[in-house]
Amino acid sequence: MDEKEINERLDDLQLDGLKIIQNPDLFCFGIDAVLLSHFAKANPRDKVMDLCTGNGIIPLLMSALYKPAHIDGIEINPDSASLAKRSVSLNKLDDIISICEGDLLDAVQLFGREQFNVVTVNPPYIKEQTGLTNPDSALAIARHEIKCTLEDVIRTSSSLLKLKGKLFMVHKAFRLVDIITLMTTYHIEPKRMRFVHSNKKSAPSMVLVEGAKGGGRELKIEPPLFVYDEDGNYTEEIYEIYGMM
Amino acid sequence: MDEKEINERLDDLQLDGLKIIQNPDLFCFGIDAVLLSHFAKANPRDKVMDLCTGNGIIPLLMSALYKPAHIDGIEINPDSASLAKRSVSLNKLDDIISICEGDLLDAVQLFGREQFNVVTVNPPYIKEQTGLTNPDSALAIARHEIKCTLEDVIRTSSSLLKLKGKLFMVHKAFRLVDIITLMTTYHIEPKRMRFVHSNKKSAPSMVLVEGAKGGGRELKIEPPLFVYDEDGNYTEEIYEIYGMM
Repeated sequence: MDEKEINERLDDLQLDGLKIIQNPDLFCFGIDAVLLSHFAKANPRDKVMDLCTGNGIIPLLMSALYKPAHIDGIEINPDSASLAKRSVSLNKLDDIISICEGDLLDAVQLFGREQFNVVTVNPPYIKEQTGLTNPDSALAIARHEIKCTLEDVIRTSSSLLKLKGKLFMVHKAFRLVDIITLMTTYHIEPKRMRFVHSNKKSAPSMVLVEGAKGGGRELKIEPPLFVYDEDGNYTEEIYEIYGMM
Repeated sequence: MDEKEINERLDDLQLDGLKIIQNPDLFCFGIDAVLLSHFAKANPRDKVMDLCTGNGIIPLLMSALYKPAHIDGIEINPDSASLAKRSVSLNKLDDIISICEGDLLDAVQLFGREQFNVVTVNPPYIKEQTGLTNPDSALAIARHEIKCTLEDVIRTSSSLLKLKGKLFMVHKAFRLVDIITLMTTYHIEPKRMRFVHSNKKSAPSMVLVEGAKGGGRELKIEPPLFVYDEDGNYTEEIYEIYGMM
């Protein structure tokens, strides 16, 4: 057994019998990936691209939730891409999901322009790279804008999307100004937005955003999504989301 | 008595003994002006400008809450400007507050560039002018972008503000993309944002925004402001805000 595989574990996604291989040394999926998959939408005929796919959690959830025609996922870290590929095979989803080990900056060259109806992305959140002891580690790359910036993510999404295609992204709420200005710069109009709060007294920590390539200006902000209630338990909505899994 | 004055009434603002003359035929202040005044900040040495000042509610509240050195208010509607002037005199605030009957589009010419530390504005919210029976009415001008657009408001604010000066604005939440892209276009960096919701299950109706002219990118989104609790009563925070008045 490869040393890297020692820490691997098999988690049950409790949705359509899906399982996922995870490794805490790399990057385990969090609530953000789950919320993004539920916030996103896709139709049965859609071609979906998941950028920064990590261990493939979003393609797995999207395939079960929306049954799109095909999902591609691209991941720069070889170990994470390997986990994702093995999870896809384990779930017998090789016909639906293709994982590509590659650089997001090459995605347009690899997949062509305007080929996708939907792009999903849970990108690295942290702009600063200061104080990183190992900027080459898989965890650092997944969390920090080392291999791609938010601008790279949004520019690439815009190139990959067909006209009127949808980008679904989750990001830190405090990056809202960057998100909105970069989306409009690259002709992706923010159409729907939902802030995620720990509880109703908290500032939003994350924001879920839907943009439409070439869309007209018309933003809908949805009611806030609270993760915990006043007693510190998950809210009903979170139970429902995880219950569906 | 002038016919226009027949409908006037004198309201007690319950803050420092302030009173305001209002006329429902023109535009009576709403919760948005009150929330904006409490969201804003000003120091004792600051020169403040209130654009679209209406009956002068924001200068009156700002003078009592923050005691800035001076507040100018500009209002295009002669009847509203007259109400504002009379309210200022009634409160013996003529040394602190000056109301100018004039067009926001002339404000930079009238007041000069970069003369203010703070600009406040509760602008007309509605972009569409369709279906207006009387686009010249004071109510239509206060509510619809007839005499000035959001771009006029933000461009003018930027010209009036000193470097590092602050813009405080309240607007409809669904205009967030316009607000952020126009502010960054005119070098006002959104620094602080708070969404106002009817209750915790509601989408935000309004957004309070603080921007800094020439500021660096660093946005703080505050916890949501809820107007009503689950029983339909005002929340404690709203009671506190109005209690301070």
